[in-house]
Parts: sequence; structure tokens; C-alpha cells
Amino acid sequence: MTRRTVLVTTDLLDKQSIKRLSRHANVIIATRLAENELQVLLPSTDCLLVFAWPAFLTEERLARMKRLRFIQSILAGVNHIPFGLIDGNVIVCSNAGAYSDEVAEHAWGLLLAAAKSIVEQHLQIKEGRGVLVRHGDAARGITVLTGKALGILGYGGIGVSVARVARAFGMNVNAFSRKQSRSGGIRVFSGGKGLTQVLGKSDAVVLALPLNRLTRGIINKETLVEMKSNAILVNIGRGELVEERALFEHLKANPTFRFATDVWWYRNGKESLETTFPFTALPNFIGTLHVSGPSAVVGRRPVVLAVENTLRFLRGLQPKNIVKRSDYVN
Amino acid sequence: MTRRTVLVTTDLLDKQSIKRLSRHANVIIATRLAENELQVLLPSTDCLLVFAWPAFLTEERLARMKRLRFIQSILAGVNHIPFGLIDGNVIVCSNAGAYSDEVAEHAWGLLLAAAKSIVEQHLQIKEGRGVLVRHGDAARGITVLTGKALGILGYGGIGVSVARVARAFGMNVNAFSRKQSRSGGIRVFSGGKGLTQVLGKSDAVVLALPLNRLTRGIINKETLVEMKSNAILVNIGRGELVEERALFEHLKANPTFRFATDVWWYRNGKESLETTFPFTALPNFIGTLHVSGPSAVVGRRPVVLAVENTLRFLRGLQPKNIVKRSDYVN
Repeated sequence: MTRRTVLVTTDLLDKQSIKRLSRHANVIIATRLAENELQVLLPSTDCLLVFAWPAFLTEERLARMKRLRFIQSILAGVNHIPFGLIDGNVIVCSNAGAYSDEVAEHAWGLLLAAAKSIVEQHLQIKEGRGVLVRHGDAARGITVLTGKALGILGYGGIGVSVARVARAFGMNVNAFSRKQSRSGGIRVFSGGKGLTQVLGKSDAVVLALPLNRLTRGIINKETLVEMKSNAILVNIGRGELVEERALFEHLKANPTFRFATDVWWYRNGKESLETTFPFTALPNFIGTLHVSGPSAVVGRRPVVLAVENTLRFLRGLQPKNIVKRSDYVN
Repeated sequence: MTRRTVLVTTDLLDKQSIKRLSRHANVIIATRLAENELQVLLPSTDCLLVFAWPAFLTEERLARMKRLRFIQSILAGVNHIPFGLIDGNVIVCSNAGAYSDEVAEHAWGLLLAAAKSIVEQHLQIKEGRGVLVRHGDAARGITVLTGKALGILGYGGIGVSVARVARAFGMNVNAFSRKQSRSGGIRVFSGGKGLTQVLGKSDAVVLALPLNRLTRGIINKETLVEMKSNAILVNIGRGELVEERALFEHLKANPTFRFATDVWWYRNGKESLETTFPFTALPNFIGTLHVSGPSAVVGRRPVVLAVENTLRFLRGLQPKNIVKRSDYVN
């Protein structure tokens, strides 16, 4: 067997990771190549290790990668990968679980910021229009979590991590996932009916689903009305899990419903803070700069896990997190 | 034994609570009395059930309450009670523990808002100066909690509740309390040396102490420099636990140090959003409107627990949460 070639399209790999991969393959860092060198290498590349899909891997170039057999994403989700241009025999692996704790922490930050009205109150104080709460009645806009129900849509690594904290807060947890199950006292619902059940009974809902054909727009006009009118919805998955117009109209019509997000809708092919509707004008909207995943990359675990999974493939073992292609293309 | 009289100085009591107390005593709701009726009742009052100390219970009137033997606070803390005007034989009870879960939730909201830079990022987006994070480096200002150390100053009901959630986030917890102990895997330090140890090793610190002679200004110029320069300090106790000027100067000098508070310093005898220093001009400051305790009052538990403790006294049992008078006056 000839030594295989791994093309790495990001500068995120540390020396140790490159060294580990180099024991099993030729490791090429794409950003260090001249244009003509890249052209020569494409036909002999067996594996791709990508962060976000690189712009330079165009349709024409992908077509020349006749030996490509394995793609590992360092990002947790794989919605950035152009499945339509990639042969069905290529194994594509997500990096599910690599960001779980950090993304779950951010989900809790958003959920609590909404529940406790932290952004809104801080702004009131900053702008000199704050009034100290002196008795219980004035705190009725605050959501107390203990004893309440949390719904988690997508019960992978992030969902499990979110649930662990919810239990510590004394919340009841119901999850929605492809596979119906019961784990650690948490009931997992599935199917359209399961979705309705979880949404209907939850005081707060965390979206931790991958974005694919089945989940795009899962929160829409119809599903929003199934939620409690004073519920909190947190998105730490992908912007397009939520229909933008439906959400905006729901937030306007229901001032006690709150939405907090770290992820944004795509505009001209990339995630963008420019929204079609003026969300930041609403007091029941909170947004952050898609920092949840990157805060995990700082800790290097996503890179280490992506490298380990690539090593599994190179050594002939079954890699983890193989993506079901039909979730993304017909 | 003559039937005793309980004077209730708040309208917070529900019918059920009044009914329960009435089985053991005459229950008088002060706000329903005319001025002359109050004057007549003072000498025959055995028990006081107060929320915040009422302005109408002046020094002169207190002096006339010759039969007073028991004061129950519905507020968790008792720093509002004028110990100097009250006979040393009067039993004063705090309502420690009655607000634990709700206040701990708020502490986590503030801690995560600071750790994840939620208020600052939201403002950047709202003001059109936000930039989406596209790789790990840009997220270096974000504090990841898992694996980090949390210090809790004051290990009563709130502290225990804060610790439970910290463990779910994968944090190591060290507490500072009057009594040195070890409970549930959490090490409790005490004394000045213990305080230094907890402050020095913590990535985040939650102030959950009562405000008294021993704790006033416990966070000051000297103790602030013992903390990590990029630590997060959360105050859900009382404003005066922290020296205002020392904190402001520390925040200005250390932009990576963050402070988030629900409680404020007193000004002209009452808690006030008007601070001596312009805290809200600093990006490393977050404030809310002292909603943590009131959000618990909405749930009625503080009232129920205060009534139950008063019933304990009325029935000749040992009440809970008896305050050590010497913590508050010489």
C-alpha cells in the first residue's frame, strides 16, 4: 500500500498533531503551497482535513481529486461541506462532541441571560432608566428555572451536556432526537409528534441539532405556536434551523417569548449579522458573535479529536461520526 | 399563657399563611392599621414578621415594644434590621436558604454573561460594530468553565446551590466559610488565610456572604490583587461586601477582570443604582436590578418558610436561622 496523502486546509493544526499524522501519511498544509503545487497534489490526495470548507476547493478542483476517500471536518457540523460535488463513496466525518461542553456553556449563558433579563436590565441601568426591584411583583418578568421543563432538540454531545446542567438547576428535561430512548432519567422523543410534545411542554428550548435536509426550518410558524407564549428559545445549532420571518413575527407578537442565539442566518453564501428583519430592535432578542464553537477551538480539543479520527481512518479502523449522506443530499 | 401577638409589617402574606399563624397567635397586618391603632398595639406585640425593615418602626416606637421577643425576616439577610435599637434578648432570625435556588440561578446568569461576554457582544451587534468570530483566536476573550476553579464566599444555602451547578459544568469548587469543612467533594476554607487561598486559585468567585461587621468590604484593594487578573467576580450578596472605589480602580486597571452584580451600594440609607464611580461606562462591568431575591418571592417560598419559622417560635420549638447578634453590633 502506498503512503497516503492528507491535505490539511487550515492552519489550526499544532506541531504535535502534524507529527502524529505524519507517522501514517504525507501531510500537506494547503496554505503553505504555491498555486501550481496544489494543482499537482490534488489527484494524489486521499484525505481532506478541513475546518470550514475552503473557497479554493472549487467544483473543478474537487473533480480532479480522483483518489479522495475521506473528509474530516474540524467544525462540529458538516453543513458547510458541498455534498453534491462529492462522490458518494467518500466517507465524511463530522466532529460531533468535540465542542459539547463549551457550546453547552454558551447555551446556558444565553438561556440565563434571557431568563434573568440580564441584557435588558443592564441596558436600562446604563441608560439611566433602571429602577431597583423592591418587592416580588416587579420580578414577575424573571423566569425561575427550578422545577420548570427544558426541551433539548438534538440529543448528541451538546444536548447531553446541556441536560447535565439542567438537572443541577432542578429542571425536568425532555429531549427530541432521531432515536427514541430514555437515558439518565431524561425522556427522548422522536418524530413529528415527539417534536410537538417536547415544544408544548417546555418552558425553555435549546436547539442543538445539526443543520440538514430534515432540520432546516424545524422552528417555523407552525412549530412556534406549539410553544408556550412565555417560553425561551436558544439557538446554538445553526441559524437556518429557525425560519427568520416566522421568528421575527412571533417575537413581535409575543413580548414575553424570548429568543437568544449565537448563530446567524446565511446571506450571500456565508453566516452574517445582517438580518432581513431588525431583531436587535426587539427587547426579547439576544445575540452573540458565534463564539461558542471557537471558544472550544482555543482549547484545542476539536483539532485533537479530528486528528485522532483521521488517524483511525489511516490505520484502517472505523472512524467515528460518519455522516449519513442522505441527510444532506438526495 | 396569654395568646401572643404577631405584627406583620408587609402585605406579602397570603391568606393561607395568615390562617396558619392565626391558630397560634393574634395576627395583625400593620398596613391595615390606623396610626392610633398601631400605637396601642406596640406594647403588646410579641413577634415581628418583616420583609425589609419598615420605616414606621422608628427608634421611639421600638422602645415601646416592651414585650418583643422574636423578629423573623422574610428577606434572606438581616443587615436591614437595626440591631443597635433592639434588646439583646430578642431572637432575630434570618431567612437563609429561602432564596437559594433562585439567587444561585441569577449568580450563574451573571457569571455566564461575563464569561461569555454576552452583554458586550449583544451591544456590539445592536450598534452595528459586531464581527462574527470565524476562528479560535477571536474567541480568546471567552472564559471556558469546564476544568476551571470556582470560589464561593459564603457557603450557606445559596453557596451550596451555586456549587451544585458548578460541578455539573465540570468546575472544581472551593468555598470560604466561617466553619472549615469538606462536604460533597467541596473543600471549605476559613479565616484570613483561607480567604487568600480561595481568591488566589479561583477563575471565578461568587460572593454569597451575609453583610455584617465581619464581611463588610471583604473585597477591597488588598484582596482584589490576590485574585487572578482575568478572573470573574459575581456579587449576589450585598453591595457593601465590595469596596466601591477599590473595585472601580481594579476594573479600570485590569480590562480582562470582570465584575457582575445584582446588588448595589447604599446611598442616603438605601440601595441605589447611583454609584460614586461610572461603572456602566466600563465594558467589564455588568449590572442587574436586584431581581434575584424578588424572583424567589414571586414563588412564595420565602414567605412560607418565614411563617413556618415563626410558628416554630410560637409553638415553643427552636427556630432556625437564629442570627448571631455580635456579627452585627458590638
